[in-house]
Amino acid sequence: MSFTTGPLLSRRGITESHNRIVPFIHRTPVLRSSSLNALIGADIVFKCENFQKIGAFKIRGATNAALLMNDEERARGLATHSSGNHAQAVARAAQRLGVPAHIVMPASSAAVKRSAVEGYGARVVESGPRIEDREAVMQTVLAETGASFIHPYDDERVIAGQATAAKELLEDYPDLEVLMGPVGGGGLMSGTCRSAVAFGRTGISCIGCEPAGADDAARSIAAGTRLVNTEVHTIADGLRTNLSDRTFLILQKHLDEIITVTDDEIGAAMRLVYERLKVVIEPSSAVPLAALIRERSRFQKKRIGIIITGGNVDFTTVDLARWQPPFSD
Amino acid sequence: MSFTTGPLLSRRGITESHNRIVPFIHRTPVLRSSSLNALIGADIVFKCENFQKIGAFKIRGATNAALLMNDEERARGLATHSSGNHAQAVARAAQRLGVPAHIVMPASSAAVKRSAVEGYGARVVESGPRIEDREAVMQTVLAETGASFIHPYDDERVIAGQATAAKELLEDYPDLEVLMGPVGGGGLMSGTCRSAVAFGRTGISCIGCEPAGADDAARSIAAGTRLVNTEVHTIADGLRTNLSDRTFLILQKHLDEIITVTDDEIGAAMRLVYERLKVVIEPSSAVPLAALIRERSRFQKKRIGIIITGGNVDFTTVDLARWQPPFSD
Repeated sequence: MSFTTGPLLSRRGITESHNRIVPFIHRTPVLRSSSLNALIGADIVFKCENFQKIGAFKIRGATNAALLMNDEERARGLATHSSGNHAQAVARAAQRLGVPAHIVMPASSAAVKRSAVEGYGARVVESGPRIEDREAVMQTVLAETGASFIHPYDDERVIAGQATAAKELLEDYPDLEVLMGPVGGGGLMSGTCRSAVAFGRTGISCIGCEPAGADDAARSIAAGTRLVNTEVHTIADGLRTNLSDRTFLILQKHLDEIITVTDDEIGAAMRLVYERLKVVIEPSSAVPLAALIRERSRFQKKRIGIIITGGNVDFTTVDLARWQPPFSD
Repeated sequence: MSFTTGPLLSRRGITESHNRIVPFIHRTPVLRSSSLNALIGADIVFKCENFQKIGAFKIRGATNAALLMNDEERARGLATHSSGNHAQAVARAAQRLGVPAHIVMPASSAAVKRSAVEGYGARVVESGPRIEDREAVMQTVLAETGASFIHPYDDERVIAGQATAAKELLEDYPDLEVLMGPVGGGGLMSGTCRSAVAFGRTGISCIGCEPAGADDAARSIAAGTRLVNTEVHTIADGLRTNLSDRTFLILQKHLDEIITVTDDEIGAAMRLVYERLKVVIEPSSAVPLAALIRERSRFQKKRIGIIITGGNVDFTTVDLARWQPPFSD
């Protein structure tokens, strides 16, 4: 099995994707904290996609996919199955483009997530909780509506869109030596790797960061073949998914390293971001900083870019008091 | 009893204060949220002093006071008593100016607050818990060191410094119709009122916002004479102080209105800011938005500026899950 990386993930393809989506996204700010840098001993910049439209980078990929459809295809509507940020991204992209959206969500999804999707004018279709349930309902919806399915990560149009976050970061900070991001399905990190090749300085490192409780990417790359999580246990709710063959092959080729971290390390890093950067991030976004904090002796004085992927937090379940920030003793 | 508002609080005095402190402060960003505006029905801009140095506007006033001393006076050091953001502000101002700082804090202060002050190189002197205890220790420290006392709000140099936050906001948004800020000791709101007069459009309204559990300002203005809180009960830990005669007279003259809000309203507004603006704010900073949310029928379509005063939160005690955000049903 192999994929040839298509023209969408070339320097030109990512640049064209960026130009395509720019009217529909924010150019998000890059934050840094001298106190955090002093604690860790590195020079860290944070690309803040938590301030992106819908509160996460996912709007980039969904919008790029929608804009790459022809008019007739797009007019039939967009569709996906997701209970997370990708659901909101597809709903919002459809709203902006004036076409229908059909989002399949498990009936057990949090009411706040469902109402966010409906707030963008999308139709929510309920499914059972298992992935097979969702996919079956999705097939029915697609057959009935003729809508176009947008996968959350197994799609080059989506990956090229996600790549534009790292492209912007490298435009602002061209001399970064390391790029770090979280790995769930691998769409963001695949795009980040391709942007590092296309826009980064020679020798820039790409490091994927993963929860130990959903470490299919780390195990897959170690084994040289794609493995899946049989069960997942992590507070990083955006990273509970498996790689696809496509994202596995891109990450296998481009990643310099994968670091896995525990939930305690993720929670501590998350609290540190709240206390020092004063921004709201979701648990998945704290995974790279958690990895950097533990492995900091190897990164002293390095110039490091971290992609903060999103800020959609359910404070009913995420309790910041549960973790002590690191360096607090 | 009366005070004549001095030249420091004139248009020229505030402008000179701003020029004086600009090298030592951030020009903080102004955020807005289209989803929040839609919920409330007004056009709201948030001046984000949570991103200010030391995480709060207090660095403005402390720095202005320190820079207005003569060299010999400053060299003897700065001093204050505070367990809050003003303590960090004086410590940080002294560090930047290369002079000693002596901060009197109750022995019961949270370790994280003490270590923040010590992190700026200041000497912490412990006192008993009561205000008289602190003041007695302060007098001893001043006698021993010859350091210069900087009051957290009863000082025109400090008020002129705090006024520069509203000045910046009005430079960015000159057509604001309403300015809202929290009232504790009244330093920020006094400065905000003076900047509204100096830099705002004709007829701009100034609204002070106060926790119902520490409502000395509302009661004082209603009574026409300064009253104090006999006891305070509010999560807005930065607003538990009383006005001074100086700030009372400024607010009595300039405020169009004071609105008081309950802790439930403050908590709900705080959570809404986390969820919609994706920024970390301390409970005191949510007080104006809480007031606006409850009274929103009177402010439809208004252009409103809110000063987010700080982002120094102790998540060990502040539990976001405790409050439901408003508009959530």
